[in-house]
Amino acid sequence: MPPNDTLSRLSFEPDPDDDPAGLLYTFGGAAPVASVRPGQVLSTWTRDCFAGRVRSAADKASEVCDPRYINPQTGPFYIEGAEPGDTLAVHFVSIEPRFGWGVSANLPLFGALTATPTTALLNPPLPELTWFYELDLSDRLVRYRARDSVHEVDLPLDPMHGTVGVAPALGEVRSSLAPGNWGGNMDTPEMRAGVTCYLGVNVPGALFSFGDGHARQGEGETCGVAVETAMDTVVIIDLIKDRSTPWPRLESDDYLITTGSTKPLEDAFRIAHTELIGWLCEEVGLSVMDAYQLVTQAALSPVANVVDTVYTMTAKFPKAYLNGARAMNGMHQLMIERARLLRINP
Amino acid sequence: MPPNDTLSRLSFEPDPDDDPAGLLYTFGGAAPVASVRPGQVLSTWTRDCFAGRVRSAADKASEVCDPRYINPQTGPFYIEGAEPGDTLAVHFVSIEPRFGWGVSANLPLFGALTATPTTALLNPPLPELTWFYELDLSDRLVRYRARDSVHEVDLPLDPMHGTVGVAPALGEVRSSLAPGNWGGNMDTPEMRAGVTCYLGVNVPGALFSFGDGHARQGEGETCGVAVETAMDTVVIIDLIKDRSTPWPRLESDDYLITTGSTKPLEDAFRIAHTELIGWLCEEVGLSVMDAYQLVTQAALSPVANVVDTVYTMTAKFPKAYLNGARAMNGMHQLMIERARLLRINP
Amino acid sequence: MPPNDTLSRLSFEPDPDDDPAGLLYTFGGAAPVASVRPGQVLSTWTRDCFAGRVRSAADKASEVCDPRYINPQTGPFYIEGAEPGDTLAVHFVSIEPRFGWGVSANLPLFGALTATPTTALLNPPLPELTWFYELDLSDRLVRYRARDSVHEVDLPLDPMHGTVGVAPALGEVRSSLAPGNWGGNMDTPEMRAGVTCYLGVNVPGALFSFGDGHARQGEGETCGVAVETAMDTVVIIDLIKDRSTPWPRLESDDYLITTGSTKPLEDAFRIAHTELIGWLCEEVGLSVMDAYQLVTQAALSPVANVVDTVYTMTAKFPKAYLNGARAMNGMHQLMIERARLLRINP
Amino acid sequence: MPPNDTLSRLSFEPDPDDDPAGLLYTFGGAAPVASVRPGQVLSTWTRDCFAGRVRSAADKASEVCDPRYINPQTGPFYIEGAEPGDTLAVHFVSIEPRFGWGVSANLPLFGALTATPTTALLNPPLPELTWFYELDLSDRLVRYRARDSVHEVDLPLDPMHGTVGVAPALGEVRSSLAPGNWGGNMDTPEMRAGVTCYLGVNVPGALFSFGDGHARQGEGETCGVAVETAMDTVVIIDLIKDRSTPWPRLESDDYLITTGSTKPLEDAFRIAHTELIGWLCEEVGLSVMDAYQLVTQAALSPVANVVDTVYTMTAKFPKAYLNGARAMNGMHQLMIERARLLRINP
Repeated sequence: MPPNDTLSRLSFEPDPDDDPAGLLYTFGGAAPVASVRPGQVLSTWTRDCFAGRVRSAADKASEVCDPRYINPQTGPFYIEGAEPGDTLAVHFVSIEPRFGWGVSANLPLFGALTATPTTALLNPPLPELTWFYELDLSDRLVRYRARDSVHEVDLPLDPMHGTVGVAPALGEVRSSLAPGNWGGNMDTPEMRAGVTCYLGVNVPGALFSFGDGHARQGEGETCGVAVETAMDTVVIIDLIKDRSTPWPRLESDDYLITTGSTKPLEDAFRIAHTELIGWLCEEVGLSVMDAYQLVTQAALSPVANVVDTVYTMTAKFPKAYLNGARAMNGMHQLMIERARLLRINP
Repeated sequence: MPPNDTLSRLSFEPDPDDDPAGLLYTFGGAAPVASVRPGQVLSTWTRDCFAGRVRSAADKASEVCDPRYINPQTGPFYIEGAEPGDTLAVHFVSIEPRFGWGVSANLPLFGALTATPTTALLNPPLPELTWFYELDLSDRLVRYRARDSVHEVDLPLDPMHGTVGVAPALGEVRSSLAPGNWGGNMDTPEMRAGVTCYLGVNVPGALFSFGDGHARQGEGETCGVAVETAMDTVVIIDLIKDRSTPWPRLESDDYLITTGSTKPLEDAFRIAHTELIGWLCEEVGLSVMDAYQLVTQAALSPVANVVDTVYTMTAKFPKAYLNGARAMNGMHQLMIERARLLRINP
Repeated sequence: MPPNDTLSRLSFEPDPDDDPAGLLYTFGGAAPVASVRPGQVLSTWTRDCFAGRVRSAADKASEVCDPRYINPQTGPFYIEGAEPGDTLAVHFVSIEPRFGWGVSANLPLFGALTATPTTALLNPPLPELTWFYELDLSDRLVRYRARDSVHEVDLPLDPMHGTVGVAPALGEVRSSLAPGNWGGNMDTPEMRAGVTCYLGVNVPGALFSFGDGHARQGEGETCGVAVETAMDTVVIIDLIKDRSTPWPRLESDDYLITTGSTKPLEDAFRIAHTELIGWLCEEVGLSVMDAYQLVTQAALSPVANVVDTVYTMTAKFPKAYLNGARAMNGMHQLMIERARLLRINP
Repeated sequence: MPPNDTLSRLSFEPDPDDDPAGLLYTFGGAAPVASVRPGQVLSTWTRDCFAGRVRSAADKASEVCDPRYINPQTGPFYIEGAEPGDTLAVHFVSIEPRFGWGVSANLPLFGALTATPTTALLNPPLPELTWFYELDLSDRLVRYRARDSVHEVDLPLDPMHGTVGVAPALGEVRSSLAPGNWGGNMDTPEMRAGVTCYLGVNVPGALFSFGDGHARQGEGETCGVAVETAMDTVVIIDLIKDRSTPWPRLESDDYLITTGSTKPLEDAFRIAHTELIGWLCEEVGLSVMDAYQLVTQAALSPVANVVDTVYTMTAKFPKAYLNGARAMNGMHQLMIERARLLRINP
């Protein structure tokens, strides 16, 4: 690990022009905005999913946003040395709301509990409504206020990025609304500060981008829109050469976390849990059947989202049960140490 | 609330004859074994899902069990005064493994990560294997030992009942392998001691039964078989008249929990989350859209099982965000107080 | 084959009392109404799914029907000699609308293109509407008339039974609204006169019943309600001893047809197509992989229903490609010959 | 309609270089190879899905093909004047196998009846096997020969294109293995000669391409690989200005056919059937509820494929029930007349 003074830092300032048409809405298909060396610290910020156009409970996304320009990303970043077959490691040092507010909304044909373009039904749509949230960044609170009934409650601030990914394989270019094995719009609340995200590299330079900050979200992101906020975010980027990662994985201090994104939701569960079994086999040397058994008794299985173009499940395994085995050759521990040094000498 | 000395107690001893053919394998369709009055404490025990026939890693369920006789239940109990349209409340005072061991197994056409009779594929089946678990009841541990690889780890003991339910509606009789709106084989780890379970009553007397004790299970119960154990269990039973409960609900000290059981898994998610929204509307007076928004930001959505005849999802809402509203007219608090008195004067 | 004069005939007249509460709404759980010997001809009739209560476009099922009493069946019939592990063969000699009219309806939470109790959404429901159909029994036509727009068209009369089955396994009693491996509410338009239906026997006597006549239906039965009619129906019943049938199968003069009933619909597809592969292996001696290949190139895969408690798929294989192999030891040909004799000497 | 002598013809010869790396594998993301004017006849040919590398039963795709280069397309063609919001009409005049043979194969993690990367299970994979088919182009037959069992049968030749589409919306570039609302790998046997396919235009010039010829396939394309062949194909291309088509539609002489591509399969059914209802409302003036009712009684619902990245359903409505209404302003009839003139003066 490099001593702190060699921790190289890169600050990337997104184009301040806020014409939504000029922003990035895909994984793949765009030229990189900057190059990052493995080990480097990247400080940048991300717009909210509405590109800042929804600013009050009176704003309707259908009126202030162009449907072609939803969920802008910051990036893509070209990671030097990244080749197909490698794994990109992205450690989230900090994710902080850029402003003191967030918004959520019910969009009529979007969400888990409504007819949608793919669960195509004849029922009348739900109303379009926007909720405005004050964020208390010092007390770390998100204030919920009912719109047409009476209830107020403070929820814990728990900032995260809904969308994190790289360019897909097979020459595909995918909308930032879609999650998949390249990452993308997974919308898991596990993507918070302190976590290391592992992404398989599909193209030279990986072409990493991210966005869709949430001040918090419930599991499932049920109506499809979390507490959406612009974010100031610091990540450390590294590369694990010659090790492929079929589906995005996360590692926190306490958990190994796998993801699977597809429909129906049981198939997303199957992907996440076969991935977790495979990871345990790699790191602990378990046989497949022994890992299947251990996962059966010890894994957690929270839903990430049931609202995007396909759904995302996560599977979580407590690292306490690894008997000391370090995943990915200790990459997360290395990242945590780097982040600690960074906090000491900001 | 009655003073403790009026807490009436009923002990029910299941038939010690262990011929599996004579046990109960359905919800509905059986004569009650005993009557319970609302408010009464019921102490009994349940056999494990293999009716005790799988006792070591060398036992295969396919050899020692008759496939017609899997997952025996204790009951049914006739609840005095219960009528269709009422809600049965069952508080689990204690759930304790009856013996110092449990078993799990991989059954070739059963589980989330294998072809099954309904996900009917042509792949060769997985091997049948049994894992034996020692339970340390004083240190509250479940000892996992890999079978054909090398790993041992102690997991927390977390006893629960996989199967809890009443007679179904429409004159149906359902196998104890199936979960549904009558409860049944929901296999959620939330069904632990300290929790109150609410079940809609479909027939006079409700005909409550339960079984399928697990020393612990992961979310999803991935291979389909938890750490299966006989259980000594004490419940307090009560009745909420003239209030229907469409799908089983649970309440712990910290959470309101709804369930949904169907396929595909996203539909189970939809049931659990519309149920949670409905419950919040009832208890807090939220509008549907405001409750949808609050659930989006604040609910947890752990999978219960992806292995049974249909799958079960749960949705959890922190009671801290209810601003003091008491669900079901305070039934859980009443049950907690009764359980406390019971512990004082066992 | 018996000469015609030995074709034994049984006529069963359902109870003319039309109190819906007294009719049969389950498979399993009811005492037989009559015994039938293998080879015997059974003439009877079935009520429509609304028990005759919906008789005009002004009638709403929600007002004239009790939701507990939908889809009454005729039976159950005890088949002499039928034991678990046998297969019941039911040949539909004739299925004729009993009256000159039928009805369909949109029921608000029922159908493929609406939120339902399991695809539980927050959208407002669709309206309840009834369509009345005149049947022209001599010209074999079903007259469609738009209700609130302008279109009239004559569709071919194609009478069939939506619900055909036996008592389920595992001691279950299932609502006549549900399809499954016991048959039940499969709602496939293939269940027409001239077809032989094979059903696995689960209990002594099989306990066969049927109902839910449709003057016609589209594939998928999209809104959930076909052109519902009472039917005069003649079947010939026979038994194939010691041959089990895991899921209901049909045989017409031209096709072998398998069924699968579950959710999601791809799993119903998987059941029906693995069943078809298995059947081809049995009858033609194909290897599994060769049968998989032949089915890939030659099978038809029409949807039966996407509306009931679970969905039903069928898979059809042209008998022309069997090179003369006779399925089920020629049972269908025997039935066809019996039906021919019956028509000669009615 | 133009007189025949004004039917302009364009012949496009794909690059004869058969290095698979140089071919087209996406919808979107590629420069057009030629421009086509509305009304023009385009004659060209397409490679088989293996780019001709699998030529005998001894060839395994996993050995002779690079997994990045599967399912090459011919195109894209820039359609002059096509703009987002228009509909492209493609009439298949003829689809003829280019050679006297075809191949199918079982690929271990691909197909409806096997574990796949998304239905991710732990079962051992199926074997990789190839079947070689002789095509009798004069008698119009496809000869099936079992590989490791004994069965031979001639199936009707029924040539079609599995993959037909345009560039997707939202700047996406999609693999030719995927079906969606841009068309792509729908694998429906309805895409045969004599049919007009309607595709919504998403980018200027539409960027139409097609390929994946099948000498025939069953519905569902169960193992995932039809009788794959290179094809000589003639299409007539036209444009319907200012009319959008949300999902690909087909029109034959006898049927209106809609498609829906997603998972689970019931959602593909829902898309196809809401699309069909919408189409009937547009062309016949039916109300939504009246169209829902008519589709319920009169539509056919064959599965297209249950094997690709998402699944495709079709819904078919007999044009005989349209009472003379001509869909899409009579485009299909115009195309049929053009094709007739083309046959007269080839």
